[in-house]
Amino acid sequence: MKMSQTLIATLRENPAEAVIASHQLMLRSGMLRKLGNGLFAYLPLGLRSFRKVENIIREEMDAIGALEFKPSVIVPGELWRESGRWETMGEGMLRAVNRVKAELVVSPTAEEAFTALIRDELSSYKQLPITTYQINTKYRDEIRPRYGVMRGREFTMKDAYSFHATQESLDETYDKFAVAYRRIFKRLGLSVIPVRADSGAMGGSGSEEFMVESDVGDDTLILCPKCGYAANTEKASCAPDIPKNKAGFPQTKTDASIEEVSTPGVKTIEDLERFFDTTSQEFIKTIIYKVYNCALDLTTAPGGTNLKRIKDSEFGEYYYPECFVTICIRGDLEINEAKLSSLLKAAEVELASEEDIIRLSGAPVGFVGPVGLKNIPIICDFSVMTGKSGNFFAVMHDAYTGGRKTDVHLRHVEPGRDFLPYMCADVRTVVAGDTCSCGATYYSKKGNELGHIFKLGTKYTKSMNVTYLDENGKPQIPTMGCYGIGVDRALASIIEEHHDDMGIAWPVSTAPYHVVIVPVKYENEMKSVADKIYEDLKTNGIEVILDDRNERPGVKFKDSELIGFPVRIVVGDKNLPNVEFKIRTLDNSQIMSVEDAISKSIDFIKSQISELNN
Amino acid sequence: MKMSQTLIATLRENPAEAVIASHQLMLRSGMLRKLGNGLFAYLPLGLRSFRKVENIIREEMDAIGALEFKPSVIVPGELWRESGRWETMGEGMLRAVNRVKAELVVSPTAEEAFTALIRDELSSYKQLPITTYQINTKYRDEIRPRYGVMRGREFTMKDAYSFHATQESLDETYDKFAVAYRRIFKRLGLSVIPVRADSGAMGGSGSEEFMVESDVGDDTLILCPKCGYAANTEKASCAPDIPKNKAGFPQTKTDASIEEVSTPGVKTIEDLERFFDTTSQEFIKTIIYKVYNCALDLTTAPGGTNLKRIKDSEFGEYYYPECFVTICIRGDLEINEAKLSSLLKAAEVELASEEDIIRLSGAPVGFVGPVGLKNIPIICDFSVMTGKSGNFFAVMHDAYTGGRKTDVHLRHVEPGRDFLPYMCADVRTVVAGDTCSCGATYYSKKGNELGHIFKLGTKYTKSMNVTYLDENGKPQIPTMGCYGIGVDRALASIIEEHHDDMGIAWPVSTAPYHVVIVPVKYENEMKSVADKIYEDLKTNGIEVILDDRNERPGVKFKDSELIGFPVRIVVGDKNLPNVEFKIRTLDNSQIMSVEDAISKSIDFIKSQISELNN
Repeated sequence: MKMSQTLIATLRENPAEAVIASHQLMLRSGMLRKLGNGLFAYLPLGLRSFRKVENIIREEMDAIGALEFKPSVIVPGELWRESGRWETMGEGMLRAVNRVKAELVVSPTAEEAFTALIRDELSSYKQLPITTYQINTKYRDEIRPRYGVMRGREFTMKDAYSFHATQESLDETYDKFAVAYRRIFKRLGLSVIPVRADSGAMGGSGSEEFMVESDVGDDTLILCPKCGYAANTEKASCAPDIPKNKAGFPQTKTDASIEEVSTPGVKTIEDLERFFDTTSQEFIKTIIYKVYNCALDLTTAPGGTNLKRIKDSEFGEYYYPECFVTICIRGDLEINEAKLSSLLKAAEVELASEEDIIRLSGAPVGFVGPVGLKNIPIICDFSVMTGKSGNFFAVMHDAYTGGRKTDVHLRHVEPGRDFLPYMCADVRTVVAGDTCSCGATYYSKKGNELGHIFKLGTKYTKSMNVTYLDENGKPQIPTMGCYGIGVDRALASIIEEHHDDMGIAWPVSTAPYHVVIVPVKYENEMKSVADKIYEDLKTNGIEVILDDRNERPGVKFKDSELIGFPVRIVVGDKNLPNVEFKIRTLDNSQIMSVEDAISKSIDFIKSQISELNN
Repeated sequence: MKMSQTLIATLRENPAEAVIASHQLMLRSGMLRKLGNGLFAYLPLGLRSFRKVENIIREEMDAIGALEFKPSVIVPGELWRESGRWETMGEGMLRAVNRVKAELVVSPTAEEAFTALIRDELSSYKQLPITTYQINTKYRDEIRPRYGVMRGREFTMKDAYSFHATQESLDETYDKFAVAYRRIFKRLGLSVIPVRADSGAMGGSGSEEFMVESDVGDDTLILCPKCGYAANTEKASCAPDIPKNKAGFPQTKTDASIEEVSTPGVKTIEDLERFFDTTSQEFIKTIIYKVYNCALDLTTAPGGTNLKRIKDSEFGEYYYPECFVTICIRGDLEINEAKLSSLLKAAEVELASEEDIIRLSGAPVGFVGPVGLKNIPIICDFSVMTGKSGNFFAVMHDAYTGGRKTDVHLRHVEPGRDFLPYMCADVRTVVAGDTCSCGATYYSKKGNELGHIFKLGTKYTKSMNVTYLDENGKPQIPTMGCYGIGVDRALASIIEEHHDDMGIAWPVSTAPYHVVIVPVKYENEMKSVADKIYEDLKTNGIEVILDDRNERPGVKFKDSELIGFPVRIVVGDKNLPNVEFKIRTLDNSQIMSVEDAISKSIDFIKSQISELNN
């Protein structure tokens, strides 16, 4: 390609709207333009790199036998009503009503469409497993779209769905995806952090996220420098630690009885530390949560028999539309609401209102405590107690808690002796500095999710009535896996990882062109030499672009660095018959013969590609 | 590819919903499934053919230097407000409002998006011409989606937009597209009928449609067997013909005065033929139309000075929001409302209501006539009169017309003597049997539009304020061309043109695979021979699929014919070491050695591709 024949739309200045490197560089290098809030257009150079990302993903999907489909982007609302997600997807899903009043959805994901398609094709166990995918347009109405295509509203996603007769078959396919995803990200030149949802003690995994580090990441990752543990803060767990007393020694059991202390206006942990002149580790923080659509069985919990419980008409599961729980946790720790929701199998948890707190505990915020608390299940974080019903063990001892009266706290509280939980669980927010089960100390990073593989189970096949006949001719419900990669976000992440002050420094696999030839002036011998290199490289299967523009050399050099072609060959009068060969990521250029420059370019590109691919 | 590793989803029966061959065969061969009304999913085999169509179009676009972009499918409503089409696109454009109340459009076409993108990049005449395109998802809310992807709601379109400093530059690019489109359709194996909008007398062309014949086509084409004239009935014109009298002789001027005849209840042309015992050619049919947004200057027309006229705030053009015109046409002909709208530069025309007709003409439907008609412009079709203001010539003579009184007609009416038109024009519907200007007789076909190339002018660049600086540093507005091809419709049309009773018979260029190998049973020597052919063909760059399914031979044969692979090689015990070689479009198969079957396959595929490409 000659530059004069494509659209080189570089910008000298950083557009004010762009705050992260990939967004700035995609705009500045002329890959991308904004069409609306969270809506973008790829220009020709950007589209070339975009297609390369897409094709690497496609090749690896095809390699594991996944079958590409192309469903419509706009799908009938009734599919989403069938699955039950019409109600639950919320405002992030863009809906429209057409001229005949039919409800339509601009696909934010495609479990429903693929489940419906497979439902119609599937009859026998012999057809299973089936693995399907698409690489297609999606739309999610981000509340605050920003960072360019890193968090846009419209984007392209590779989404795959697999269907299985057995858990073993799902596990096998899931493992293939886990390997394929690692290959994809390697080929893209991306350092990803695979994060298992339930890594550690539980063994096995039903979900893995592939994260890239990013200062503006949506997620916080907890990482172990020693054993490689990596988890999203929403799921991370840590080794139990021993609570200390003020003197720094492990807390010990007390024989002293509970004592009420008047604590007027002493509400926060900081207030308490000051008032009692001790550390926050000696306090049991007691927090009441309101819980929506809790599917955990609370029949035997305090107050559980009085709770309104509903059977879901479609899924047949029981849940409590609304209930309350009390959490006890060590004073220096925070409750992780994602972990709590997951524990309770709940749609959502939120801090109870002041009114509810007083009604349920008898005391206002700051003075709630577990001792004597009735009619509401107490859940102790493992930092306070461990064990199971009938067999609970105190971890904290001789603690302070709220007194369930205004301006009163209790001292010498012994968990187990003075109150019993309904259950114990891990609901703490793990942070950098906490201890890994391997003994090392966690550190933490911000990250963005690039991909996700997930064992879905029968959620969709059940609600959408998918069955096949097994070996005995009996109808069975297949189990599913789903597997996503954001194409635009992967592209932006490549730039985040591969750039410097001058611009992008593309890995060879996704560079818009491999080699740029820059004649200082496109005339006379410089022209004929540039043309010769151009033709020779093309003949050798190298993707090459020739800067034939009538621009000053400085502009051409700056553009080549900004756009970030992996190899640059400068053809200037000064060096002829030699030329200057430069690899974008190396500081120094070399002067060499035309033949050497050509063969070095070919060698470099081919070796880079083979390195990325293997 | 092995068939067991992809999704072969053939159906024995025609689904009831499908009435045309392409829709039936796309469903039966397992290329396509329905997701909703006018919404489809391509399954793996269908997607392969779809991508081939897409790629042929892409290659030819790239070959003429068009630059591929990828704008979002969802675009801000404000872009459509800028161009003025937010109001005019009507219900066919799908709109949505997102969570922050922003108006969004699911792109039905992309003049706005590309004009906005180029507006931001364009500064100097040196950048022009620029030709851009995309191959992307579109949505148009068809009132009655049917015939599968031939008229779906969501579809993929290749839409190109070019920007120019001069008309000559636009003409040049337009001509390149005209050639590229012919190449594309040839490579796809499609017989298209290029239809110029204003072919014939006017010279030059600003628009060309590429039609395929179809019994269920949206359009009617008028075709000349001799000179190659081809026009959409909406624009077709024909040679003038001489009106005859009852005896079959040319009508002659009469000296007789107009005579009123009582014609109680005689309203239609058929009634009149019977009543006056003559042919419909002797009657002047007089029809009153209500016209919306007429931009033709009617200042000097009867009643013209009293008409309300408005200046368009954006485009600065004057138009009449509402007016009426009377059309006189020979009794055996029909008025073409598309031609009439175009003549009047109007948004729409419709037959006037009975009330308006009586108010304007004094008589009810059936008795309207031009004699004595005031305050409304009379437009004579060329079948009645020709010539220009001040110089009109009668074509019909001694005619019958309505009497402008209930139950009264007039005889001996002489156009020119008894009434004068405001203007004469060609507004007749041309039909098969009419005469071409070359003298031959037209025939007619139904067709579907596959592609369209069009000189847009400055409609969008003007309304959206696109300018560039010319050689003298003065801002100028670029002129545009636009060029579309429907990808899905092209694919369906290939099947319409290439099928028989057994199924599809793909041209090699778009077949999902070139060769199918069918072992009668996939075991023993049949397996090893089939595998050898499979590997050899793959090595030679042939796209091959092996039917390794555990199905009866009859099922495999039927499937191969239904899906329509261009070449089939059957490996059966009976013929070994020979195999059966069959070309899908030929009746007879041949028994030959494995080596011959391989080389014949390669030769056939390569020769077919080169024939389609040249």
